[in-house]
Amino acid sequence: MNRAKLVENIRRKRSFLCVGLDTDVQKLPKHLIGKEDAVFEFNKAIVDATAPYCVAYKPNLAFYEAEGVAGQIALEKTIAYIKKNYPDQFIIADAKRGDIGNTSKLYARSFFEYLDVDAVTVAPYMGQDSVTPFLGYPERWVVLLALTSNKGSHDFQLTEDRDGQRLFEKVITTARTWASSEEMMFVVGATQGSMFADIRRVAPDSFLLVPGVGAQGGSLEEVCRYGMLKNDCGLLVNSSRGIIYASSGEDFAEAAAAEASKLQKQMDALLD
Amino acid sequence: MNRAKLVENIRRKRSFLCVGLDTDVQKLPKHLIGKEDAVFEFNKAIVDATAPYCVAYKPNLAFYEAEGVAGQIALEKTIAYIKKNYPDQFIIADAKRGDIGNTSKLYARSFFEYLDVDAVTVAPYMGQDSVTPFLGYPERWVVLLALTSNKGSHDFQLTEDRDGQRLFEKVITTARTWASSEEMMFVVGATQGSMFADIRRVAPDSFLLVPGVGAQGGSLEEVCRYGMLKNDCGLLVNSSRGIIYASSGEDFAEAAAAEASKLQKQMDALLD
Repeated sequence: MNRAKLVENIRRKRSFLCVGLDTDVQKLPKHLIGKEDAVFEFNKAIVDATAPYCVAYKPNLAFYEAEGVAGQIALEKTIAYIKKNYPDQFIIADAKRGDIGNTSKLYARSFFEYLDVDAVTVAPYMGQDSVTPFLGYPERWVVLLALTSNKGSHDFQLTEDRDGQRLFEKVITTARTWASSEEMMFVVGATQGSMFADIRRVAPDSFLLVPGVGAQGGSLEEVCRYGMLKNDCGLLVNSSRGIIYASSGEDFAEAAAAEASKLQKQMDALLD
Repeated sequence: MNRAKLVENIRRKRSFLCVGLDTDVQKLPKHLIGKEDAVFEFNKAIVDATAPYCVAYKPNLAFYEAEGVAGQIALEKTIAYIKKNYPDQFIIADAKRGDIGNTSKLYARSFFEYLDVDAVTVAPYMGQDSVTPFLGYPERWVVLLALTSNKGSHDFQLTEDRDGQRLFEKVITTARTWASSEEMMFVVGATQGSMFADIRRVAPDSFLLVPGVGAQGGSLEEVCRYGMLKNDCGLLVNSSRGIIYASSGEDFAEAAAAEASKLQKQMDALLD
């Protein structure tokens, strides 16, 4: 999906919500546990319930890999289901990959040819030749880690170099010379709300994928105040646990829809 | 596997060779292409041929993920085969994972419980809480990226902070406060031979996993001169393509054995 189409969806649905499909088999509603295809059935119900309120889905691969072959099948079925039934949804494989060039090429093949998703999250530590193999697929995106939402983001990402540039700023500034804003986004955690002004200084026109709203405590208002672009929003805000585990009962899908709808209404207001 | 056992294997076999199982279906010998289980059959033949000359195997997950479910099955069969037939081999899942705490926990479960390997490579960008969930599994290891073997390693890993400490040094120094040398190793590329003296200044007793010998041009002699520990070696040197693709004909396993044997002989001399 290209940027124009993504922005069109955001405008039409009055939402820049991304629902994180971090489906942990150990946290499924009781009535699904032990059922064949339980993870896929859970995801299918979540997607059907939340699709009106969001523009993107982000399965985190850790949750599927933890279940081996069965998890891989559930992931592939989930992606195929979204693509077939909700072709306007932007799908991000949250994988945080990155390896030497010939290996990253394989990961790119895996995500953009085999799984056929719109975007993949990539870790910047190994530099240019670990990232560029993911580029050049038309209408596909690299979502590069910049400033993450966790406590450990302070360990290295905030380290200042001799010129006072912090690592996450150097990552953004450098990576923007590798790819245009039509093919690269950055991960910036909502828990670092006040940093969005600094981020916009180095990434004035990039889309940002923002985790950390909800379970991790980030503020949607603060993210929008400092991070939203006037012309085309420039934000995808992700919520995972807050939506998909809103209820652990048989009403899990309705509860997820209610949470997603609540966020969509807040986004509607913030988009004005 | 604990450190004492790994070192015992190195001493007994006079080798600190790790064979990288970067098995690309597009590079298989012609007579295997299209065969059912071709990737596993290839790996099995490579392992049988090279096991006398190495102490570790390192499948890079990118190559298996690129084939989806079939790749996942080939990976699991390969690991199970090595564990059953060569229980003294140290198995490293080269995955370069790293995510927020609750997600890294899932990856750890995936590698140490489901796949049941000895070690997993982890990327440091997201800091402490992305790494520590991999720790605490007895006799299992985190292999943390420090200074990688690719050109892109210069983009961020060599950035000096205000005190002149380079990022890879800060990663090592910081991570050594999270884990002992009995449960954490560091990736240091052989292509950065002269850096091994600097690495040993900050990681005087850590095992180092060293890619980049062979296809990537690193020098085994240089790595050992600056990086080897007097008492217990402290090195695992990996070669992937140079061994597994030594021949593209029906003699691929014999050719791999010959390459592995050549490296083992060099290591034998260097261990004195």
